[in-house]
Amino acid sequence: MNNFEYYVPTKVIFGRDTQKNVGAVIKEYGFHKIMVHYGGGSVKKSGLLDQVTASLKEHGIEYVLFGGVQPNPTLTLAKEGMELCRREEVDFILAVGGGSVIDSAKCIADGVPNPDVDPWKFFLKEAVPEKALPHGNILTISAAGSETSQSCVITNEEGGWKRGFNSVTHRPLFAICNPELTFTVSKYQTGCGTVDIMMHTLERYLGGKTKDTALTDRIAEGLLKAVIEAGAAADRNPEDYEARATLMWAGSLSHNDLTGLGRDVMMQVHQLEHELSGMYPAIAHGAGLSALFCSWARYVCKEDVERFAQLAVRVWNVDMNFENPMKTALEGIDRMENFFRSLGMPVSIGELNAGVREEDLEEMADKCNLRGKRVLPGIKVLDKKEMVDIFHMAY
Amino acid sequence: MNNFEYYVPTKVIFGRDTQKNVGAVIKEYGFHKIMVHYGGGSVKKSGLLDQVTASLKEHGIEYVLFGGVQPNPTLTLAKEGMELCRREEVDFILAVGGGSVIDSAKCIADGVPNPDVDPWKFFLKEAVPEKALPHGNILTISAAGSETSQSCVITNEEGGWKRGFNSVTHRPLFAICNPELTFTVSKYQTGCGTVDIMMHTLERYLGGKTKDTALTDRIAEGLLKAVIEAGAAADRNPEDYEARATLMWAGSLSHNDLTGLGRDVMMQVHQLEHELSGMYPAIAHGAGLSALFCSWARYVCKEDVERFAQLAVRVWNVDMNFENPMKTALEGIDRMENFFRSLGMPVSIGELNAGVREEDLEEMADKCNLRGKRVLPGIKVLDKKEMVDIFHMAY
Repeated sequence: MNNFEYYVPTKVIFGRDTQKNVGAVIKEYGFHKIMVHYGGGSVKKSGLLDQVTASLKEHGIEYVLFGGVQPNPTLTLAKEGMELCRREEVDFILAVGGGSVIDSAKCIADGVPNPDVDPWKFFLKEAVPEKALPHGNILTISAAGSETSQSCVITNEEGGWKRGFNSVTHRPLFAICNPELTFTVSKYQTGCGTVDIMMHTLERYLGGKTKDTALTDRIAEGLLKAVIEAGAAADRNPEDYEARATLMWAGSLSHNDLTGLGRDVMMQVHQLEHELSGMYPAIAHGAGLSALFCSWARYVCKEDVERFAQLAVRVWNVDMNFENPMKTALEGIDRMENFFRSLGMPVSIGELNAGVREEDLEEMADKCNLRGKRVLPGIKVLDKKEMVDIFHMAY
Repeated sequence: MNNFEYYVPTKVIFGRDTQKNVGAVIKEYGFHKIMVHYGGGSVKKSGLLDQVTASLKEHGIEYVLFGGVQPNPTLTLAKEGMELCRREEVDFILAVGGGSVIDSAKCIADGVPNPDVDPWKFFLKEAVPEKALPHGNILTISAAGSETSQSCVITNEEGGWKRGFNSVTHRPLFAICNPELTFTVSKYQTGCGTVDIMMHTLERYLGGKTKDTALTDRIAEGLLKAVIEAGAAADRNPEDYEARATLMWAGSLSHNDLTGLGRDVMMQVHQLEHELSGMYPAIAHGAGLSALFCSWARYVCKEDVERFAQLAVRVWNVDMNFENPMKTALEGIDRMENFFRSLGMPVSIGELNAGVREEDLEEMADKCNLRGKRVLPGIKVLDKKEMVDIFHMAY
């Protein structure tokens, strides 16, 4: 087990009707002028935005609205948000939406008090946001885990770069999580979310060869078992509150670091997927992960058969084949693939139906290893050649 | 699943040698004059106190030493600590020790900025500490979970009352957790700790009849499985770093609320045990819990056979007896009892060898229901009669 630090100062306010109290929550922190950040029309259509502004008014909190976030949120929009916050002297950002909206809010929050720094430098790790505006959120999609995580992923349209970085400034002050708000998420998006949640835990579980992380393993396995059941239940009945609640809370725990503590955390599949949806923005992140994961797993699992077999036995109820543990490992990956299929998720790049051209696979690998400037560490180190191999396997 | 709030702003700094950096950690927060609070001679003998003061000096942090905390920490000592903090204008308390030392520090922290309130009123829930001194800790025993919890338990020698209360002021700023510091904890104290850790999760798991807490259940079960293995391993080899690490991190997670989120949390066995060690202070808390738990479980389990059976199947690997789930439930309790025995823990009041008199059982029950003023809610409500029954069963 590695040494670790774990610091998640986000207050999670979880359950039915919790969003209706957002004004009181913000007032208690003493903020005066806030920006409400959101995506497209769904929060208007559902009435959520009205509930939010009603609560803000009730508690005398001034606000400015700023919508328009798209999936794969862009640096351009975030920069507009920074300008707006400065102009309006906003002292708090409330994100109302899913991971894209929350990540956009985090990017804005980093930028506002650092006007002399090009915010893209934070993503290139050429600068560090020493200070940021405080922010919080009302979550509407269980998937990215951004509501309590330290990560933030943004797409820079110049060149189609999609990059993320971790920062303590990215931990929200609070996360209001009402599973009912996810009842209207489509089956497809729910499936994408289920995959993303599982992947945040799986990439930690399978990310490195760290030995002896017994408790972290058990927590990760338990979370995966709960998500598998809840993902299937929410697919059958989108208004199953308990299933939605499991997915929502699992989404937070899967990406707030808990399920990887003490381990080397790598996230190779996430890095590969960023290139895929970076170049083809119509691809939903969760679908991209689903299309790549099993190929990645089959490509790397011989480097740590024992661990893949443990996953198969403990999470997928595969009987251990002591004579041929590789069979156990591969059976686990097969069951995972079948599970993704059962949710209507693609298990190859072709099934994404996004028109990805085979000749682009090399360019995606080339971007992923930063034109020769990095390899991806993990149980198997991936250089450009291996990345191309995996993209082809998944094609 | 119930609505919940989860807020654990404590920074956990976990792993080898982490205590050596405590001066830098405190300096980063900007404190000037701190009180180092500890127990008896063990932190002196082990050299830990010297390491701490060396690091404080290195970073130019003034400090005052205040030792003398005993197991079942007292209000009298805490009041002395409050006086000392005021006199020395201390702005931060560093607890170096286990749950008793940390709880004593929390009690002092609550009292210092509230000189006009009798601090016992906080424990009687007649007053609330609106402000408190900040505090942090270096943990030396895996057990109570006080290092990240919101609880604090203190004994008022006047009348032998042992009481606890929860407060956001009890969340430490940081917890420095180095498993190596627990290598020297005796087998008996290690066993007590293992029981206490399991009980914090079990009392949440079995505390109420809340339905549909799938994820919380899975996390609790995973934690219990990891602790059972690590408890046995640490009993065999006290210097097994990985086992000690599992126990240490599990101790924090077991009592920081994670393993009970969304559930009614009751803690009946803890309440009963407080009377036992309150009246017989030589009894270690974990040993008292071990002496009572299985009798309590057999007494109440018919009220929620399904849940006790789930525990037996998922944690103790008992085969489900669908025709007679009660058999499954009871088999799980038996295995738990055998596990406690394997650690050298008492499974009856008699085995505590503390000279507990049978005629005191009624007085303990009478105190536990506050002389007729409360019952203990749970899957089975306990009034004085039921408490007496359980004490007798366990006798």
